[in-house]
Amino acid sequence: MTINIKNFLNEKSKLSKMGEFQNLKQIEGLEMSSVSADLYGNGRDDLSLFYFKDGANYATVSTSSTIISESLAWNNNSHKKTIKGLLVNTKNANTFTGKQGKESLDIIAKNLSRILTIKESKSKQGTTETVKTKDLIFASTGVIGEQFPVNKIKDALPSLVEKLKKEHNKLFWLKIASGIMTTDTKPKLAYEELIIGDELVKICGVAKGSGMIAPNLATMLSFIFTNADINSNLLRSLLKRATANTFNAITVDSDQSTNDMVSIFSTKNIKLGQNLSLTDPIIHKFEIALKKLCLNLAQQIVVDGEGAKKFLTVRVINAKSLGSAKNIAFSIANSPLVKTAVAGEDPNWGRIIMGIGKSREVVDIKKLKVKFGDFIVAENGKIADSYNEEKLKEYMKWDSISIEVNLKMGNDAFECYTCDFTHDYIDINADYRN
Amino acid sequence: MTINIKNFLNEKSKLSKMGEFQNLKQIEGLEMSSVSADLYGNGRDDLSLFYFKDGANYATVSTSSTIISESLAWNNNSHKKTIKGLLVNTKNANTFTGKQGKESLDIIAKNLSRILTIKESKSKQGTTETVKTKDLIFASTGVIGEQFPVNKIKDALPSLVEKLKKEHNKLFWLKIASGIMTTDTKPKLAYEELIIGDELVKICGVAKGSGMIAPNLATMLSFIFTNADINSNLLRSLLKRATANTFNAITVDSDQSTNDMVSIFSTKNIKLGQNLSLTDPIIHKFEIALKKLCLNLAQQIVVDGEGAKKFLTVRVINAKSLGSAKNIAFSIANSPLVKTAVAGEDPNWGRIIMGIGKSREVVDIKKLKVKFGDFIVAENGKIADSYNEEKLKEYMKWDSISIEVNLKMGNDAFECYTCDFTHDYIDINADYRN
Repeated sequence: MTINIKNFLNEKSKLSKMGEFQNLKQIEGLEMSSVSADLYGNGRDDLSLFYFKDGANYATVSTSSTIISESLAWNNNSHKKTIKGLLVNTKNANTFTGKQGKESLDIIAKNLSRILTIKESKSKQGTTETVKTKDLIFASTGVIGEQFPVNKIKDALPSLVEKLKKEHNKLFWLKIASGIMTTDTKPKLAYEELIIGDELVKICGVAKGSGMIAPNLATMLSFIFTNADINSNLLRSLLKRATANTFNAITVDSDQSTNDMVSIFSTKNIKLGQNLSLTDPIIHKFEIALKKLCLNLAQQIVVDGEGAKKFLTVRVINAKSLGSAKNIAFSIANSPLVKTAVAGEDPNWGRIIMGIGKSREVVDIKKLKVKFGDFIVAENGKIADSYNEEKLKEYMKWDSISIEVNLKMGNDAFECYTCDFTHDYIDINADYRN
Repeated sequence: MTINIKNFLNEKSKLSKMGEFQNLKQIEGLEMSSVSADLYGNGRDDLSLFYFKDGANYATVSTSSTIISESLAWNNNSHKKTIKGLLVNTKNANTFTGKQGKESLDIIAKNLSRILTIKESKSKQGTTETVKTKDLIFASTGVIGEQFPVNKIKDALPSLVEKLKKEHNKLFWLKIASGIMTTDTKPKLAYEELIIGDELVKICGVAKGSGMIAPNLATMLSFIFTNADINSNLLRSLLKRATANTFNAITVDSDQSTNDMVSIFSTKNIKLGQNLSLTDPIIHKFEIALKKLCLNLAQQIVVDGEGAKKFLTVRVINAKSLGSAKNIAFSIANSPLVKTAVAGEDPNWGRIIMGIGKSREVVDIKKLKVKFGDFIVAENGKIADSYNEEKLKEYMKWDSISIEVNLKMGNDAFECYTCDFTHDYIDINADYRN
């Protein structure tokens, strides 16, 4: 079953339904493993390896923070268009770790490349190729500023490589998705497939990221794998376009990580044709599937908010520019006042007005129309004539709340996703109007 | 005793000490009253009048939100340099109330000016002057979008005018400061005085505004009164300068009200001299007192955060510009991650690094120095050599926490004030590192 929150938007569903996982399949050319490097001290998997024996084309988008992790800095310095491996650790962000953090990656990369070279020389007899340190990239998530656990990770590398698996069924994907979690309450996975010619193109994605309020450093990581042969430049364009309205359209608490990273890898297994570009119908079909998968993963991150009980969609339409629409949408979605009202099931639409105003975007309040679900709450500069507090209160009990702001000033629109603020937030704020 | 949080910064004090009130005095030429217009339905004072029988010079700074209350719109349309009265209501923001809200003010202004004209004709026998509607300004705070309670307010006006008092002792100031509260847990008052020549110049201020997280519409109102004769233009310059590092340097949850308003009124009682300007020593002395009073009131607003247990000062020094310093300071002070760490008494300085990074200001992490109180936690791009977790944990137990970010890039600095995020925020986030 496809996990798609959209389906739930207008019904009283439990968000726990989201817990059903899709059936992810094997990506040829990808090997994966996940072990415990004892970073958490409780035996859970905390170190994962994604290995491409024939290399993978890849593209990455990462945080816009001006302070980034040593892992992201390493990746930025790698100008290779294909890579052999991605190593992911949790518990430690490897950010603001100075020389120690940087040198740790050197040590780990040297060890891992050596072990992978030995593995390759065994499997491809007669090969003289070696895996170089520059063939490897890193992703880290966890606490900022603590010494990077270089020895624990180094010691776990032989076992990690030994456990690499070519075959991955749904359960194995779940294990891998669990290995990259920090405080997530459930693994996040998504799958799309499409037929191109006679070939089955598969896209598998995993993500981590905790939700509401202050997601323990808010780091969001997502890794997407496809067997379709798409070059790195095109992957990069596709990924940027796919993240704009998915991973870049979610907010949990307005805090931004130094480690955010979304990557896509192509194992080049299925040939799609020569000189492909964004305008090719084949690529267009792929892009639609990729966007669907990214939206699915991004929404799973919002739904897994710590304490979050409701999913909130904020849609701004008919704005004079995309920038304006985005600014207003995030101003509302990041507002603790809006999120506590949602948590308290209080249709306090005045807080939407506040959110619009504090964005500092110029609006015409006489034109402004605000809807909660299908209910118009405000128009013509005042409360709607059809306003019905009882019906709205009923609507606010739903698990998925949709707020639409119609500016009637232009043709641009933006939709973003967030969750509510619960618990004491409610006690203090939600009952304000009574 | 002067209420000054600064005094508490380096001692383990209880913020409740802040509850001691200064001894506010009478401002000649000012009459005040506060009654219940039954807006809350529980008999509490919710309507206040400040009346200047000989008029008052005044200046106002108000919200930068692009959606503002009808009350602020009314004030903006008044281009008078002196006014006769300020009417303050709580419970209803008179924002997004459309025609009804605007017409309500017309009705109330007409009634109030008529009643005040009768009062004046009685007290100043033979006068032919009338109080005009344009002699009145308004301040409103409360829920956005609900119908403005015009009749309740109109009906309360005769009693409000009848109860106007010329003599105000500390207790009466407390009553007035209480009458403008919404969900504040305590009234906010401040007093400064200075001798100029043989004259006692007095400055009395009241404020309302709730603190932490999502201060029930976050409206901040403050009204400051002085007997010193300062013209409106000069008052305006003084107020703008005074608010920059006081009322504009506090943040509770990054939400901004449609109704924020800080005004200063001069009853012109004490003549300071002709053609005064900002460079006059007399005015400089007045400015210092005014800034002190504004900082005092602003900090009282932060301290009265709903659920707030700690006061947090974020100081950014040696920035390349004031804008950069301010941006970084607020990025840290608005971060739920930083505020939950403070609530959890966890010296998680990595979150300060995150806050700096997400401001998108370019910094040199090799130069960056971060201090908690007197303890250096990070320098030279990594954790400080002198870092002592135990000492820091002890420091984090204090009621007032000070965080300093030294950018070593220039000469500009900015300091802002906020409070912690408590309760469930703690359970979920503060223990992350353990």
